[in-house]
Amino acid sequence: MAKWQDPKWQAAMAVGLDYANMMSERLGTKQGLSTVQLKGLRAPLGAAHKALNLARTTGKLPFYELPYEKKRVGEVKAIAAAAKGKFENFIGLGIGGSALGNLCLHSALNHFHHNELSAKQRKGLPRVYVPDNVDPDRMNALFDIVNLKKTCVNVVTKSGNTAETMSQFMVIVDKLSKAVGRKNLPKHLIVTTDREKGNLKDIARELGLMTLEVPDGVGGRFSVLTPVGLLSAAFSGIDIDELLAGAAAMDKRCLSPDPAKNPAMLFAGLTYLATEEQGKNIHVMMPYSNRLYLLADWFRQLWAESLGKRVNRKGKVVNCGPTPVKALGATDQHSQVQLYVEGPYDKLTCFLRVENFERDLAIPRLFKDKDGIAYLGGQSFGALLNAEQAATEVALTQNQRSNMCLKVPAVNAFTMGQLIYLLEAATAYAGELYNIDAFDQPGVEAGKNATYALMGKKGFEAKRREIEQSFGKSRYRA
Amino acid sequence: MAKWQDPKWQAAMAVGLDYANMMSERLGTKQGLSTVQLKGLRAPLGAAHKALNLARTTGKLPFYELPYEKKRVGEVKAIAAAAKGKFENFIGLGIGGSALGNLCLHSALNHFHHNELSAKQRKGLPRVYVPDNVDPDRMNALFDIVNLKKTCVNVVTKSGNTAETMSQFMVIVDKLSKAVGRKNLPKHLIVTTDREKGNLKDIARELGLMTLEVPDGVGGRFSVLTPVGLLSAAFSGIDIDELLAGAAAMDKRCLSPDPAKNPAMLFAGLTYLATEEQGKNIHVMMPYSNRLYLLADWFRQLWAESLGKRVNRKGKVVNCGPTPVKALGATDQHSQVQLYVEGPYDKLTCFLRVENFERDLAIPRLFKDKDGIAYLGGQSFGALLNAEQAATEVALTQNQRSNMCLKVPAVNAFTMGQLIYLLEAATAYAGELYNIDAFDQPGVEAGKNATYALMGKKGFEAKRREIEQSFGKSRYRA
Repeated sequence: MAKWQDPKWQAAMAVGLDYANMMSERLGTKQGLSTVQLKGLRAPLGAAHKALNLARTTGKLPFYELPYEKKRVGEVKAIAAAAKGKFENFIGLGIGGSALGNLCLHSALNHFHHNELSAKQRKGLPRVYVPDNVDPDRMNALFDIVNLKKTCVNVVTKSGNTAETMSQFMVIVDKLSKAVGRKNLPKHLIVTTDREKGNLKDIARELGLMTLEVPDGVGGRFSVLTPVGLLSAAFSGIDIDELLAGAAAMDKRCLSPDPAKNPAMLFAGLTYLATEEQGKNIHVMMPYSNRLYLLADWFRQLWAESLGKRVNRKGKVVNCGPTPVKALGATDQHSQVQLYVEGPYDKLTCFLRVENFERDLAIPRLFKDKDGIAYLGGQSFGALLNAEQAATEVALTQNQRSNMCLKVPAVNAFTMGQLIYLLEAATAYAGELYNIDAFDQPGVEAGKNATYALMGKKGFEAKRREIEQSFGKSRYRA
Repeated sequence: MAKWQDPKWQAAMAVGLDYANMMSERLGTKQGLSTVQLKGLRAPLGAAHKALNLARTTGKLPFYELPYEKKRVGEVKAIAAAAKGKFENFIGLGIGGSALGNLCLHSALNHFHHNELSAKQRKGLPRVYVPDNVDPDRMNALFDIVNLKKTCVNVVTKSGNTAETMSQFMVIVDKLSKAVGRKNLPKHLIVTTDREKGNLKDIARELGLMTLEVPDGVGGRFSVLTPVGLLSAAFSGIDIDELLAGAAAMDKRCLSPDPAKNPAMLFAGLTYLATEEQGKNIHVMMPYSNRLYLLADWFRQLWAESLGKRVNRKGKVVNCGPTPVKALGATDQHSQVQLYVEGPYDKLTCFLRVENFERDLAIPRLFKDKDGIAYLGGQSFGALLNAEQAATEVALTQNQRSNMCLKVPAVNAFTMGQLIYLLEAATAYAGELYNIDAFDQPGVEAGKNATYALMGKKGFEAKRREIEQSFGKSRYRA
């Protein structure tokens, strides 16, 4: 039995949410929430719970079932196992939801300088790169350091039409063909896309490439626990069974209709009140942990793309959506906290606090005669970082700034699974409270069409002329 | 003569600001600015210009003169020249303003995977690390990959009391002493701190360490063009003369009292109007360039810590300050643009567009039979990225979302110097418009004191008891 399968260990690893610093007891009545406001949430949260349960049981929200997908996970594990020891590098090509989850898991669960470790230190696992953009300087730099003959590439796009990913794909097919020969492409290229349709699926068939499936009905921002996020994780040695067990453990808690026992419900309800009743339109996620920083980046997409909507389900124009901001403790105490403490009352800060670090670092007892720093000697970096987290809570709260804290016993695959599932489920609840569709993204079409027009795609000639006419030479410049 | 000394080249490299997409001509009268509003800015901007000039000429704002500091720059260059070829690694220890500028310059001007290049590819220049936090997992990971015998460490703190930096310093003194012997510390450790006072200065004297000076009156967030930011730049081969020449070129433009010719004045005036007259409390900086992403991070500190203030100069409580947000194009089109296009009208987005990339990447003409992607073949990554930038401008503007664009002819030390100086000068102007002190940070004291209390520093016992009483066990958790 693996450590994470022990129910006692699982209980000790439960992520908790503390929101005392959002309440009027600590913030005063003007910036704090009252128990009456909390009670007022019960009915809408209860309705949301019911509606989501119905959608789930009728198969309309398949992301809920991802912790229990045996078949696709088996495929991912088999591919990773077969590849073990064969590659020096793994490159994940994708953008947005096809990259953010991978980066989040990789940075949380692998060595901070994974790619700079020697092959021996990496235990034969490949270096992992997810360029996540089409910046030519950045992409060229990647090709300077990887030997494509020793590289496995995973291309991820559900539609097979994403301009950035397909451009990357075209470049990599060309470069890999030159490096290893066209007939060897199937040994180096794995495609993750729609089950049946799309350009990438067709090309994979033509070239004989291995394919993994992005399940139907799971949008990019909810896809980290599908092959989209799991393949790079498995390649780099992350225990994806442990990750999914963490998600399942959180799912269990989120089945409760009682907000006091359901962290996702609470997270959604509290953030909704802060935004809609208190005008806090900025939601800062501030982990005191470098390993969790890119979780905040992954959350940015989840929260922004799900809740940033022009119309509600009744077609009424609402232009809603809090703006997620990522910050890093303690670093951003020296950058953002001045504003958080003294600026407008427009923020809700959610801390992530890690109770136990994997390897703490002792501060030696040096310079005992120097008053200003002697107190540091004999303590540890972990203790300092957590004292700073607590101190920032104190500073924000004493200045009536709303904040809450997700307490993470330790950073591991099990707690990452919990955090991911918690935030996904919270997003679904929040969508219900706003009464919007949290699973579409109609606002990105305008930009896509303009890109097609400017890149000369057939059928977009009129759009191009329209843009050229409206966006002529600017009189306003310096 | 170096290329950057040619006036023609300099003119071709001038950074421009285009704000047509903030005006009512394009956004309509509700979200756009009128020419009347722009005219209304002339008087306050004129007064700001006068006040800042007076402060500058009376020596109260020494950051303005940093492009012309010969002595300190000479010291930096001499140290870097003497160290050339001697070290495999350079570690910069500092936090906030003592790290963000270094990271910004390094990521903009060195190879994207600099630390993964071979020594030969790096031309003997050291790898560069700026951990910028006290996360123990992150710091331990760094010690896994650097050989301290081949490492030069620069410790940066003006006061010599910064808890995070001095903890890092204590660890590094201990580890270096074990690796190279205490008597060899001066060969590996360089201190950047106050000219005369503070614990770090005292320790440097005792240990015989080389010291560089943080000039008086230049706060952390304005210090990138002092030895604070210049030493790591010089170590990694960045031409700091070119950087300072870029800053000087921008200074020349910012001496103009005419907003139409002074980009810093314009930037400040426009962002002020958007915030105070249009309620856009979120300022997104969105470079379409991975190399400029950390400039947006550096700007976050500059903007937030300078403008986030509780009281104005008359002592009136104002709780002002826009919240800076960093975003990355094209990546964040797949994460944030849905919200930017459809969410609340609470944002001003400032794009950074790079006209010429150092190395473009051609997209091969493959898959000509696939309609959805064939149009990409024969184009380039640079063209795609810039089409996406233009397309996002179109999408935002057609949805009445305020945006402007800093146009950067190419990313090099000269344009980086311009951008840094422009944004610093803009911050000073904005401080005048808000009538606040843009150069202090009183709001960080509360958190520092709470940290001292929780870490058991002498003299903070009462504070500790107060915290323990106010922040006891929480009833609000799940």
